[in-house]
Amino acid sequence: VVHANQMAEQFPVVRLDSTGLEAARLLAEHRLPGIVVTDESGQPQSILPASQVVQFLVPTYVQDDPSLARVLSESMADKLAHSLRDKTVRSLLPAEPAPLPQVDADDTIVEVAAVMARLHCPLVAVLADGRLLGVISASRLLQLSLAL
Amino acid sequence: VVHANQMAEQFPVVRLDSTGLEAARLLAEHRLPGIVVTDESGQPQSILPASQVVQFLVPTYVQDDPSLARVLSESMADKLAHSLRDKTVRSLLPAEPAPLPQVDADDTIVEVAAVMARLHCPLVAVLADGRLLGVISASRLLQLSLAL
Repeated sequence: VVHANQMAEQFPVVRLDSTGLEAARLLAEHRLPGIVVTDESGQPQSILPASQVVQFLVPTYVQDDPSLARVLSESMADKLAHSLRDKTVRSLLPAEPAPLPQVDADDTIVEVAAVMARLHCPLVAVLADGRLLGVISASRLLQLSLAL
Repeated sequence: VVHANQMAEQFPVVRLDSTGLEAARLLAEHRLPGIVVTDESGQPQSILPASQVVQFLVPTYVQDDPSLARVLSESMADKLAHSLRDKTVRSLLPAEPAPLPQVDADDTIVEVAAVMARLHCPLVAVLADGRLLGVISASRLLQLSLAL
C-alpha cells in the first residue's frame, strides 16, 4: 500500500510575510498554478494562486474597462510587477483563500483522494509530526491511481 | 511589444467526446492542473480540472464518510480509475465549468493580464482566425511580466 509520505513531492513555499515579488518569481520559475503559504512557524496556511498575483499587475480601472488595456504600455506593467516587492504575500491572498487540507504521512491513496474529492481542492499538504513533508497535487494523484 | 501568439504555449487538449481515461492520462503525464476541452470542431469550450477528475476515483459514500476511505482497498481505486474509460469528458465536467476566455493572437501582455485579472482565471486560449494557437497560463504571464 502506498502512503502519503511516498506520494508527496517537494514544492516551493512562501511565508505570509514574504514579498509578493518572491512569490511571483517562484510561481514563474517553477511554472506553478499556485504556491503554498506557511505561517512563521512553517505551518501550511493556504495557497496563493498565480491568477491572484496577476490581479496586481493590472490597475483596477483597466480591469473595469478592458479597452484601456490596449493603450497601457509594457513599462507600466513592468512597474506594477516590480511593485510586488513592496507587498506581503498576506496582502495578496484572496479574501477567501483556497483551502489547503492536511493529510498524514501514513494516509493511503484512497484517503488522500477522498479529502481532495470532498473539498474540490487541487493540492493537499502532507504532514508528519507537524512538519511539512511536501504536497500532493491532483495530477500526481491521478498518475499514482492510473499506475496502480 | 510582445503579442499573445508569441506568449502562447502548446498544451494538450481533449474533446467533449474524449474518454475520461484519456483526459486523466494527459493530466497525469503532463502533470497539469487542468486540461483544455474543445468541441468537435476544435473550438475551446472549457477547462477540466484535475481535481474534478479525482471526484470520480472516490465513491460518493466515501466522500461523505471519510473514515471509510481507510478501509477501501487500492484495487477498488484502481477499478474506479479505469472505469473512466466508459465516461466522456462531457460527463466529467463540473456543473459550472471554469471559464476559458479567448484572446486574440495580437493582444498584448497587458490585455491578456486584464482578461485574466477580470475573470480570475488561470488560463486563456489564444486564437487566430478561429484556430486554437495555444494557451497562456497565469504563471507564464508572471514569467513574461517579470522579464520585461
